[in-house]
Amino acid sequence: MTAAINQDAQDQLFINARTHNAWQDKPVGADLLQAVWDLTKIGPTSANCSPARIVFVVSDEAKARLKPCLAEGNVEKTMSAPVTVIIGSDQKFYDRLGELFPHTDARPWFAGNAPLISTTAFRNSTLQGAYFMLAARALGLDCGPMSGFDNDAVDGEFFAGTDIKSNFLCSIGYGSGDDFFPRSPRLDFDDACSVL
Amino acid sequence: MTAAINQDAQDQLFINARTHNAWQDKPVGADLLQAVWDLTKIGPTSANCSPARIVFVVSDEAKARLKPCLAEGNVEKTMSAPVTVIIGSDQKFYDRLGELFPHTDARPWFAGNAPLISTTAFRNSTLQGAYFMLAARALGLDCGPMSGFDNDAVDGEFFAGTDIKSNFLCSIGYGSGDDFFPRSPRLDFDDACSVL
Repeated sequence: MTAAINQDAQDQLFINARTHNAWQDKPVGADLLQAVWDLTKIGPTSANCSPARIVFVVSDEAKARLKPCLAEGNVEKTMSAPVTVIIGSDQKFYDRLGELFPHTDARPWFAGNAPLISTTAFRNSTLQGAYFMLAARALGLDCGPMSGFDNDAVDGEFFAGTDIKSNFLCSIGYGSGDDFFPRSPRLDFDDACSVL
Repeated sequence: MTAAINQDAQDQLFINARTHNAWQDKPVGADLLQAVWDLTKIGPTSANCSPARIVFVVSDEAKARLKPCLAEGNVEKTMSAPVTVIIGSDQKFYDRLGELFPHTDARPWFAGNAPLISTTAFRNSTLQGAYFMLAARALGLDCGPMSGFDNDAVDGEFFAGTDIKSNFLCSIGYGSGDDFFPRSPRLDFDDACSVL
């Protein structure tokens, strides 16, 4: 039986973590981006299908491409973040299953089944997006996830000619601690859960 | 600037965590289920919409209801788990936004927009499902997530007369350490990520 992780780690990952809207002017190093991926990639996906594809938008040129795709309320905070991540999903993820799930031939489970492909790509890239955020927090970064943007515009700008579709965005960096919303209420156990 | 959580915690959450298929005969207490939810619920969702609804399948009676909904390969391991969680999504999540997102009237962003409702419920309940797994691991539990089941059958059996739809399943408990697949490969940074 495994003990709980220490309280500081629980606080950092969950209890004290907030969605950040304002950022310190402090870059995120390439080594740290690699380290976040190296935790993210370990999280479980269905048949290890690992459909998430991640674009780290860092340069001014890349930010300028992202800017017109954003909902108006997300422009300023995104342009001022050191890094904004586009979490996408590879709709041809099943072509990689020979490498990723080597103990059986899982490609035929998906190939040709468009609804299952779409659902699997969306669910599992979203799981990986959540792992990404918790991995970033685990390594000392703050997160500001967003779904207020034009997915088709991002796909056209960043994923043209590929089988990748955008899922959601997440800025990462070091939050300034300014511009928080107050912590909003959450649903109680008895409201959201049942035990049968 | 925040430091990384300690290596033991990183290992417990990510590096050493495995998908479990065999379980010790050891129950999971009600207090621990509550504690997992109390971490899960803090994780970010779009407009704090919090669509996940969770059914903890614990009793023999509830397991018997779940059994015919499972893919054949998932029956034995699920029936032997102390708890299997059904992660569902409330398709009427927007009716709770008055409580959950009190600083603005966000209900009209969603009401009547069926594609946005469906996408938001799916994406955000999946994020919460990932938070749930990492919260369970943080508190010393092992996880065995599954999407191999008949969603419509689960919805009919467990969510009839509600607006909740099943998303995925996850057994939780104390893994026996038997019956692991070998760790499958993951995609390298350069394969799954790009920096622009």
